[in-house]
This record gives sequence, structure tokens and C-alpha cells, in this order.
Amino acid sequence: MSTTHSGPCALVGSFGRSVRALREALGWSQERLAENSNLNRSYIGEIERGVVIASLQTVEKLAAALQVTPADLLAHGASREGQQA
Amino acid sequence: MSTTHSGPCALVGSFGRSVRALREALGWSQERLAENSNLNRSYIGEIERGVVIASLQTVEKLAAALQVTPADLLAHGASREGQQA
Repeated sequence: MSTTHSGPCALVGSFGRSVRALREALGWSQERLAENSNLNRSYIGEIERGVVIASLQTVEKLAAALQVTPADLLAHGASREGQQA
Repeated sequence: MSTTHSGPCALVGSFGRSVRALREALGWSQERLAENSNLNRSYIGEIERGVVIASLQTVEKLAAALQVTPADLLAHGASREGQQA
């Protein structure tokens, strides 16, 4: 787990927003997502705020918990960005 | 960048094969992909062999170099797995 990312990494920001949107769509708290993904609740918060850079292993855990594929989890963020542009 | 991943992480393996397949489809060496993605050549080799866990920042760099979206890069590996299953 690396800390705040140095350069601009659009994917980290959109991934965080995607995790939050899918979590809220399920009506889950960060606590519940943390339990279902076997991750730490505060780390979920950091991911959603885009202040940490998730690894593929974390992406896989969150996708499984949110019942989407890892690719969908990445695409979800990107597609929402496109709609709002 | 974390070293060899502890538990089974299917995504890390399929991601590596996906990077290799897309690189080879472009006719690129690992050296060329390293230059185009601003990553280290030996790190590219480790990613392709699935022995390191890439971060989202690395996924973004490789997707840009390989001219696909990050989601496509993840989906590419998964779809190839499905075909071979």
C-alpha cells in the first residue's frame, strides 16, 4: 500500500468515486464494505477519497465484495466521468 | 510496489498475461513497453510473470502505453481466461 500518490493519477480518483458509488448503491456503510472485502474501514475511506493508490489485489477484493468484475469497477468510474464531462 | 503476493490473486496473473498479449500484439519488446510506460524493464517482466502486484498507477501507465483503457486491460486478461476454460 503506497501513501498519497505523487503525480496526477486520474484512475485513482475515479476508482475511489466508483467504489463509493457502488457501495452506496448497495446501501452499505464503509464498515460493511470493509467486512465484506476483508479490508480496513479507514483504508476504504482513503481509497474512496483517492488519497491512496490501491493495488490489483485490493481492486480484486473490492470488486468481489461489490459483486462486479475488476474491469467493471474501473470502467464504472470512467463512464461516470464521461457523463459528467 | 509489493513483492510476491501472498494469497491467490487471480487478477495479478491474468493482468500479467494481458499485458504480455497486448505488448506482443503491438510487436513490442519489454524494453519498448518500458520506455513507453516510463517503467523499469525488469519490472515489466515481473508484472507479465505475475510475481509482483501492480498498483492502479502502474495499471494506468501500462494501459496508456498499450493504447487501451485500464478497464480493457483488466478485461482482456479475464476474457482470454474464459476462452481457454
